[in-house]
Amino acid sequence: MKAREIAEFVGGELRGDGDVEITSVAGLTSAIAGQVAFVEKDLEHPETAASCLIVPTDADTSHANHTTVIAVSNPRLAFAQVAAVLHPRKRRGAESHTTAVISKTARIGANVFIGAFTCIGDETSIGEGTQLRAGVMLGDNVQIGNDCLLHPGVFIEDGCSIGDNVVLHAGVVIGADGFGYVRDAPDTSAEAAATPHQVGGEYLKFPQIGTVVIENNVEIGANTCVDRGALGETRIGAGTKIDNLVQVGHNVQIGKRCVIAAQTGISGSTVIEDDCVIGGQVGFGDHARVKSGAIIGSQAGVLPGKIVRPGVWWGTPVQPLDEFKRQNAHLKGLGRLRSDVRELKRKLGQGSDD
Amino acid sequence: MKAREIAEFVGGELRGDGDVEITSVAGLTSAIAGQVAFVEKDLEHPETAASCLIVPTDADTSHANHTTVIAVSNPRLAFAQVAAVLHPRKRRGAESHTTAVISKTARIGANVFIGAFTCIGDETSIGEGTQLRAGVMLGDNVQIGNDCLLHPGVFIEDGCSIGDNVVLHAGVVIGADGFGYVRDAPDTSAEAAATPHQVGGEYLKFPQIGTVVIENNVEIGANTCVDRGALGETRIGAGTKIDNLVQVGHNVQIGKRCVIAAQTGISGSTVIEDDCVIGGQVGFGDHARVKSGAIIGSQAGVLPGKIVRPGVWWGTPVQPLDEFKRQNAHLKGLGRLRSDVRELKRKLGQGSDD
Amino acid sequence: MKAREIAEFVGGELRGDGDVEITSVAGLTSAIAGQVAFVEKDLEHPETAASCLIVPTDADTSHANHTTVIAVSNPRLAFAQVAAVLHPRKRRGAESHTTAVISKTARIGANVFIGAFTCIGDETSIGEGTQLRAGVMLGDNVQIGNDCLLHPGVFIEDGCSIGDNVVLHAGVVIGADGFGYVRDAPDTSAEAAATPHQVGGEYLKFPQIGTVVIENNVEIGANTCVDRGALGETRIGAGTKIDNLVQVGHNVQIGKRCVIAAQTGISGSTVIEDDCVIGGQVGFGDHARVKSGAIIGSQAGVLPGKIVRPGVWWGTPVQPLDEFKRQNAHLKGLGRLRSDVRELKRKLGQGSDD
Repeated sequence: MKAREIAEFVGGELRGDGDVEITSVAGLTSAIAGQVAFVEKDLEHPETAASCLIVPTDADTSHANHTTVIAVSNPRLAFAQVAAVLHPRKRRGAESHTTAVISKTARIGANVFIGAFTCIGDETSIGEGTQLRAGVMLGDNVQIGNDCLLHPGVFIEDGCSIGDNVVLHAGVVIGADGFGYVRDAPDTSAEAAATPHQVGGEYLKFPQIGTVVIENNVEIGANTCVDRGALGETRIGAGTKIDNLVQVGHNVQIGKRCVIAAQTGISGSTVIEDDCVIGGQVGFGDHARVKSGAIIGSQAGVLPGKIVRPGVWWGTPVQPLDEFKRQNAHLKGLGRLRSDVRELKRKLGQGSDD
Repeated sequence: MKAREIAEFVGGELRGDGDVEITSVAGLTSAIAGQVAFVEKDLEHPETAASCLIVPTDADTSHANHTTVIAVSNPRLAFAQVAAVLHPRKRRGAESHTTAVISKTARIGANVFIGAFTCIGDETSIGEGTQLRAGVMLGDNVQIGNDCLLHPGVFIEDGCSIGDNVVLHAGVVIGADGFGYVRDAPDTSAEAAATPHQVGGEYLKFPQIGTVVIENNVEIGANTCVDRGALGETRIGAGTKIDNLVQVGHNVQIGKRCVIAAQTGISGSTVIEDDCVIGGQVGFGDHARVKSGAIIGSQAGVLPGKIVRPGVWWGTPVQPLDEFKRQNAHLKGLGRLRSDVRELKRKLGQGSDD
Repeated sequence: MKAREIAEFVGGELRGDGDVEITSVAGLTSAIAGQVAFVEKDLEHPETAASCLIVPTDADTSHANHTTVIAVSNPRLAFAQVAAVLHPRKRRGAESHTTAVISKTARIGANVFIGAFTCIGDETSIGEGTQLRAGVMLGDNVQIGNDCLLHPGVFIEDGCSIGDNVVLHAGVVIGADGFGYVRDAPDTSAEAAATPHQVGGEYLKFPQIGTVVIENNVEIGANTCVDRGALGETRIGAGTKIDNLVQVGHNVQIGKRCVIAAQTGISGSTVIEDDCVIGGQVGFGDHARVKSGAIIGSQAGVLPGKIVRPGVWWGTPVQPLDEFKRQNAHLKGLGRLRSDVRELKRKLGQGSDD
């Protein structure tokens, strides 16, 4: 790809030699000749060996003597767009490994890659161009769309449905039973972990016979678990990205274009609307609702039933970021406050006995 | 199953047509004809198409014209009991897939299902009616009881023992080494993370040669890990239910009928007695003890060696729920308290310099 | 191994019969004849059936009538050293299971064990004496050193590099894509979870084309994930030990001889220098730096970009342990403080209206 073509592709302004050939992307300092790098802010010391640099439109590039420069409004985005072209997802061609165990009633689309030691259950369908890497296990009546990429060891339980262009990383488990039990004693429920309960009854599984629906363009990180609905469905909206080791409970509804970082846990029936950004290790109680556009910081805790409005939130229980910061400042000042009170007591002749 | 039979089965009072045929369970709003649903509280607007409704005994069902009603003391429990009959666990019959790799010294009971790409080690025994789904790996000298269900990709290390009717979800790892090391420098221990230590010594593995015992009727969620004992055993008591992505450290003892939600971590040698309920993302330091019947809220933190008495606990470090709430209320009032102190200082002529 | 040989091996002082034969290690109370146990403190009631006891040098062993005693400065270390000899890692000999799928271009060293249902990709190399247990999947261009042990179901993605004597427990995922996206809207980034963002744009993957390097003598716990670098590498230093269910983000650099407990999550580009000890469920924001020798308590939270100096740290956000304890004490005293202020207000004639 010539620098000129890259500039056209990302809608940027070319400065310098447009004929230089670019074969791959790299970081600014590690780039070598033939590579394109990017900077997000104006570049004072352009010490890069990259042949092409993507920079912000307001960057002063007069000092970039030997490097071709492409100026764009969002260099990081342009860089990612170029990377997607220069480093396309590895495409494994049509193949069905001899070791694969495929039900006779499965429906396999064109150009599907089926790796070694895979299992495909009855009435399961796989869309065109999808890749099932080694060790992928699909239950019965599973539907997988087109151009999906399932990494090694992914397991999808009976009846779950996956859209197009979905990426599931290694070890992902979709559709295991949700965590719901009823205690064999009057009026107690295992789900009400905050309520005292009677001792001695056995736990009977509440039916976990729903399903999971994952919409188009979702990506789910390694070893993440998405439980099936108890009676209805668990759903992950189009374009949502979920990191590694995340827990998505039964009947959770996640909207479109959400981003959820690693090790976050979402309890049953919680709703996260569109365009939310959730940090890592966040915990959601059941039946919470996060309104569209809300941002929740890492390690936050959302109580059961809580409604989180748009804005930035942090802490356990979650508070608006401003309040959380103010409270933390107050906390830092507690020692001082205590001294002040002691001094006031002394002045008023109370003495100080603490 | 006729409504009459359901009423008898759950010990409920039948109101309406007992001959209606019920084939499956469903949620109240999504149910259709031929299904049974339930409500936990009195039903003001019984807008359901279910043919049968399980309701509390005190419910006014005079308005339920067309729906057969069954009144019971605990509708959720009755519903779960009916679901267990109408939606029994999928039973895979006696089969040993041709791809399975089974030691000649393994002992396989009657009616055992052995899926594709499974491994069964030397001297390992599998009880009657147990199902090993695809990709299950069992080490040597593993004992599995009757009627267990091991989902795809479960791994059980050498020497571990599993009771009857145990369900292990996909990706569960039982019996990996516990996390114990000794630093090759005098008097320091990797386990004492809270103590300063000397720099430079290598970590030598403390022996992790114990085992894991999982008693009857335990269910363990996807990708959860239960480490083997260092010298003794790690044990999970009968009827205990553990959610996804939970970490159970070496030598942990979990009692009977406990419920432990997702992403909780339990450090080495901690004891959780019978009938405890533990929320999600809770962390337990090592050598803690949770007394029978205690309830610990999500994201709580239990310090090493802490004894948690019966009652409801929350926060880090855990406190009785009442104290935790009071402290949170105090926190919310800190800004006000600070203003008050400033005003007092002003009145006493100290001025305010903060 | 005779007690005398053990004493020599650990550099300890033998007291009693040096000829007693020891075949295995055990805990103090469960040990039987022929076993060696240890105590860390002086033993008042030496109620053990062990034939040999490792004790601290200052222990009074005059009452240990029938037990051979070995006195050392660090009994736990000596015990671990003896255990490593008496209970060596199970060594599976040279074997390549008939079901293994091995690329013709893979390079397999001498005495390598290749279990059932394994996959080894193109140009991948496996060092001498390494064991790949059942279901291990290696991508292309993976390099594995000598004497490694990869437990069942481990997956290593293309291009990653593993040193010598590395142990990866079941379900470990090395080299999956890091979690980095760019929103298709000006000047917004999915990584800046703390900044408000525009609604509506799709997330495009930031290139995740780097690699993972794991140095010698590293051990990684079950179901832990180590993501590949975005452009550069993710690196885990020699001798570092990582527990189960840990998340290591892209471009994270972990130094040598670190210990990281279960369920901790480390965001992108964070650096943990040598000889750090990290508790369980700790969360690290991106681009943080933990200086060599720092100790961070469980459930702590390290803000993005934070520099953590040597010392002991706890809390969210992390503080020096002393400050954290002082703040907790202040918190406990808040109710008292509030009463004091109310009393002061009353004395000054303000009344009390809260």
